[in-house]
Amino acid sequence: MSQTDTVNRRIVLAARPRGLPVPEDFRLEQVEVPEPADGQVLLRTAFLSLDPYMRNLMDEVGPVYAPRVELGAPMVGATVSRVIASRHPRFREGELVLGNAGWQDFALSDGSDLLAVDGIDPPSLALGGLGMTGFTAYVGLLDIGAPKPGDTVVVAAASGAVGAVVGQIARLKGARVVGICGGEEKCRYVVDELGFDACLDRHEPELAARLAVACPDGIDVYFENVGGEVFDAVLPLLNIGARVPVCGIIAHYNDRTLRDGPDRLPLLQSTLLQKRIRMQGFVILDHYAERFEAFRRDMLVWLRDRQVLLREDRVDGLEKAPAAFIGLLQGRNFGKLLVRVAET
Amino acid sequence: MSQTDTVNRRIVLAARPRGLPVPEDFRLEQVEVPEPADGQVLLRTAFLSLDPYMRNLMDEVGPVYAPRVELGAPMVGATVSRVIASRHPRFREGELVLGNAGWQDFALSDGSDLLAVDGIDPPSLALGGLGMTGFTAYVGLLDIGAPKPGDTVVVAAASGAVGAVVGQIARLKGARVVGICGGEEKCRYVVDELGFDACLDRHEPELAARLAVACPDGIDVYFENVGGEVFDAVLPLLNIGARVPVCGIIAHYNDRTLRDGPDRLPLLQSTLLQKRIRMQGFVILDHYAERFEAFRRDMLVWLRDRQVLLREDRVDGLEKAPAAFIGLLQGRNFGKLLVRVAET
Repeated sequence: MSQTDTVNRRIVLAARPRGLPVPEDFRLEQVEVPEPADGQVLLRTAFLSLDPYMRNLMDEVGPVYAPRVELGAPMVGATVSRVIASRHPRFREGELVLGNAGWQDFALSDGSDLLAVDGIDPPSLALGGLGMTGFTAYVGLLDIGAPKPGDTVVVAAASGAVGAVVGQIARLKGARVVGICGGEEKCRYVVDELGFDACLDRHEPELAARLAVACPDGIDVYFENVGGEVFDAVLPLLNIGARVPVCGIIAHYNDRTLRDGPDRLPLLQSTLLQKRIRMQGFVILDHYAERFEAFRRDMLVWLRDRQVLLREDRVDGLEKAPAAFIGLLQGRNFGKLLVRVAET
Repeated sequence: MSQTDTVNRRIVLAARPRGLPVPEDFRLEQVEVPEPADGQVLLRTAFLSLDPYMRNLMDEVGPVYAPRVELGAPMVGATVSRVIASRHPRFREGELVLGNAGWQDFALSDGSDLLAVDGIDPPSLALGGLGMTGFTAYVGLLDIGAPKPGDTVVVAAASGAVGAVVGQIARLKGARVVGICGGEEKCRYVVDELGFDACLDRHEPELAARLAVACPDGIDVYFENVGGEVFDAVLPLLNIGARVPVCGIIAHYNDRTLRDGPDRLPLLQSTLLQKRIRMQGFVILDHYAERFEAFRRDMLVWLRDRQVLLREDRVDGLEKAPAAFIGLLQGRNFGKLLVRVAET
């Protein structure tokens, strides 16, 4: 099923995943292109953002911070879309907007969730470095991590959409930055292109020992977006007064039960106490009102001056979204993962 | 061995405890009363403070935030002492000072760790409500917990030296306060005397279910000084944006190994993330310079106006310190535990 102007292809949740999603958990459907009512716009998706948080929304139980995806309903997701018909006074036909059309070619909106994509070039940046993932890096690192010059900042998933920005901002703030990511090529990119001070390949053995060597002064900020073995390697190296913004724990999103013991919850508590560590979860949706403007202003300068570089991992075609998303959960992307659904 | 003016009785660490300390881990010794050199004062202990943190300092390994007690050395501890001989220009014979003489009748000091106990009546308050434990409650609750009017604040060890003050300050800030402590008598005291809104006896069955009933709007601040089953009951009730100052985890101080699984460390991480919780350990020694003055000012007013009530649990005689300390770790004290070593 390729894209047309007359059919709305959409990818719906066919089954709730058990652990890592499989292609059969998704279904590509064709439905009619909807008609905008008065006060609505019809959007055509140009870019769809794929992000790890979507995995949680596919589950039937467990805590989520956005509405779950119902069985049979389209997968949700942020998009850059073109307004192709407008019955809304604020939007004109032809303009590009940031919205939440989800995994489909067309969608309606009443405009309340739309933002103009003015002067952002390429417009897909509104989904990445100038959008949710860049903003996540900015708020988590600066408002919770609060790196000081000379601090050691460790970033997992360092070549990913969030991690790469975290590390570059930390460098701008004078910190020493150690990345962790999967594979030699990503490590080389992070050091050679993005200017991290060091990067460790998490696929190589003895991660904990190598991390200890790479952080001779301990760790002052750990930006947590992975969990699992990376966190296990980080925990004993955290310094007194360390800050741990918790942005995601992708290593656990597919867990169906708790892992075997011993129970290390008290160990984490006692480490937080003895080392006076601040560990704080955050969800970027909470911070738009108060911080988005400052973020946009700073990030536009950093991008213009090439102090922050961004890398997109683009997949062409809506039908490839499920496989790309599954790969994202396995760490197969390299940079901000986007699906180009239609030409902009 | 009773107290005399010519012998220094001191309680030393005889053996490193395996789990809960036993009386044989301590030894009462008699040594000569030391002579002050130039620039020193000789102190005679009036009150010795007994506090849970001392348990950690008795271990050979594991993280500590103050120097460990060496085998054969006197147990450490804060004291209110009288200066009985002074070769130091800042201190005169006869005055009472707050210091760190440890578990002994006499000690020398160069004055650098001494504070005058001016106008504090009774002077033992300098070790409790107007000293370390009150200050711990103040900083942890206000600076990390940040209760807002209408918030639900849960305090474990609610009749203890720290918990009782936490709950009363939280009430002053307009929060609804639910205490947890061991035994019906303590619960009654916390509600009837201290004005907590509710208190649960942790020895009764079904703590988690009872806590859920007592906190119909969830928990906004949990002041952690216990860990163990109390934290297990609290965790699922924490609200979005909750704050968890971690002051102590007395339930685990005697653990010799991690408890059986499953491993709930990832569960704690994912709860912090999904609920945007700030969990932060703190050690009160870090905060004297910046916050002690404000604490003293506020607390003096609250005590004068009887907005904060304090209860001391006094034990008479240095030789009783080991048994009292073991009881403290078992929750047998009722209020701030002090040893009266000599008449003031």
